[in-house]
Amino acid sequence: MSDKVQARERFIGEFDGLVEDLKTILNDYKMPQEAIDWYVRQLYYNTPGGKLNRGLSVIDTYCILTNQKVEDLDKETYKEVAILGWCIELLQGFFLVSDDIMDQSKTRRGQPCWYLVEGIGNIAINDSFMLEGAIYVLLKKYFKSEKYYVDLLELFHDVTFQTELGQLLDLTTADEEVVDLAKFSLDKHSFIVIFKTAYYSFYLPVALAMFVAGITDSKDLKQAEDILIPLGEYFQIQDDYLDCFGTPEQIGKIGTDIKDNKCSWIVNQALKLATPEQRKVLDENYGRKDDEKEAVCKKLFNDMGIEKIYQDYEEEIVSKLRTDISKVDESRGLKGEVFTVFLNKIYKRSK
Amino acid sequence: MSDKVQARERFIGEFDGLVEDLKTILNDYKMPQEAIDWYVRQLYYNTPGGKLNRGLSVIDTYCILTNQKVEDLDKETYKEVAILGWCIELLQGFFLVSDDIMDQSKTRRGQPCWYLVEGIGNIAINDSFMLEGAIYVLLKKYFKSEKYYVDLLELFHDVTFQTELGQLLDLTTADEEVVDLAKFSLDKHSFIVIFKTAYYSFYLPVALAMFVAGITDSKDLKQAEDILIPLGEYFQIQDDYLDCFGTPEQIGKIGTDIKDNKCSWIVNQALKLATPEQRKVLDENYGRKDDEKEAVCKKLFNDMGIEKIYQDYEEEIVSKLRTDISKVDESRGLKGEVFTVFLNKIYKRSK
Repeated sequence: MSDKVQARERFIGEFDGLVEDLKTILNDYKMPQEAIDWYVRQLYYNTPGGKLNRGLSVIDTYCILTNQKVEDLDKETYKEVAILGWCIELLQGFFLVSDDIMDQSKTRRGQPCWYLVEGIGNIAINDSFMLEGAIYVLLKKYFKSEKYYVDLLELFHDVTFQTELGQLLDLTTADEEVVDLAKFSLDKHSFIVIFKTAYYSFYLPVALAMFVAGITDSKDLKQAEDILIPLGEYFQIQDDYLDCFGTPEQIGKIGTDIKDNKCSWIVNQALKLATPEQRKVLDENYGRKDDEKEAVCKKLFNDMGIEKIYQDYEEEIVSKLRTDISKVDESRGLKGEVFTVFLNKIYKRSK
Repeated sequence: MSDKVQARERFIGEFDGLVEDLKTILNDYKMPQEAIDWYVRQLYYNTPGGKLNRGLSVIDTYCILTNQKVEDLDKETYKEVAILGWCIELLQGFFLVSDDIMDQSKTRRGQPCWYLVEGIGNIAINDSFMLEGAIYVLLKKYFKSEKYYVDLLELFHDVTFQTELGQLLDLTTADEEVVDLAKFSLDKHSFIVIFKTAYYSFYLPVALAMFVAGITDSKDLKQAEDILIPLGEYFQIQDDYLDCFGTPEQIGKIGTDIKDNKCSWIVNQALKLATPEQRKVLDENYGRKDDEKEAVCKKLFNDMGIEKIYQDYEEEIVSKLRTDISKVDESRGLKGEVFTVFLNKIYKRSK
């Protein structure tokens, strides 16, 4: 078993105990068994099935910050950090279950979206709430006595609200009924991806690890934010690129950004460069639930050389991030290596 | 203007300032204007339109606990207590907007449900999240320096989770596709209404007022819970009664419990008393989206004398609550009068 697979297995091994904790709470409330079974089922269906990058990166970051190998962490410390990792995965589950309903997606992580599973339907909305709710149950149980407990609660509140803001702007910009490409812009794209993805996927895991490692100076949190937010933006631009140019086998789902009229980096680049004729093609074909129109858009993106533009962007942002990382002030314990590890995981990934 | 109308107007007057606070946060994030406008619109559509009983009862309870008239509260204290009242109304907005989607309701508070307003649709799911999110933005802004700040956060977390548990059991018991009255019972009904309604509607406002008034002994919170939870159960049983026997003008919506296959107190009483023939009528007519079958159920409830059973229940529970209230230990500052005021508002209400 590779180190990476082993790390994932150990992390997943902690999840069962957290589900037990949540079951205990429901049992203490004397909740009927069928509802407990439902909750357990949806916790397993919606939380551990993904790549777990966010959760695992809390552990990796903590190890870098404290100069330890993950196998040398004592059991209690490992569990503490892993719980925070699972809290991000629960937050992610909350967002994905509800986003899939809002976007009317079909598959997620290679299986049907939860709301499409037989007998679930709109109950998935409340199920998504209960994934979010689990975060605060677990934080209260395991972190109430820590001096940074309030910081953890506020961090989750802030990041959740930021993500919802990003989702709001995404949904109101990409109206599936009325296609209006004039609403799109690279600036708006930037705002959407930073708020909808970068805060919870990049800043949150590092900030959580920093709290546990005792690196809590606001200057250090600011340093982390200033690198992780553009890094997260790069990640999402890459995601937009893969949604359009990756295969379903690569990305584990069928890309729907074109049909869903998404304010994707790809279409924004195309809009910026389009001749009036090309713009007309986009106006008439983008954002329609129609395979042929989707193919017309993809052909146009190819003709316009959007792939090359993406590759140039990628080289430029990666170079800038490496420079910024080299300048991190490590005097209070923060380490540039934390960010290098993130960057190396993302750079030229194909899934 | 009556005292009651005046109290309501003053409370509503505080809401504009809170919307301004939320706008400021979004502006600080450099959120595009159209998204700020969207948020403001949905805050006004979904928060202040109801009876505001929950929000107002924080203020009323605080006044009783501190022996003051509401008009004698200084401006800062009034605002502080009113903000907590609005936090409950925001929580209520979060639940109602999402419940209406899950239940596929048509109207709410005499207007179309938010998700049915043109151009909204499933974006209402994210809008409901942002009503919940507003609570923690406001608590952080106004209560961060209070020694009971963490208690407030945990109280909102706990009560939110309890309400979601109640909603889960409600939705999984009342499957709209597969009607199975064998899943119903008065015990399950009791659990649903206590968790789905009583905690956030009755215990939460009083607990919030107690924190601000400095009455924070866990014995007193327990005393409040022990009276307010059965009182809230009584309120919801009354609500079930009105859904079936009240007119749309009385209750401000069209009752849909029968068609929605709800695990209502009414049908549970009928199931308890039904002859095999009557049970067959219920099995064949309850929970169908059909006006005639709904009318058959209503006629059966009339024939079975469910109204009289409700009236007997009401007299008995009110008498028991009055006895319990008379025994409240007021030595640390809690007052039985808090509960009497609640009870008098509910007893024999018609809406």
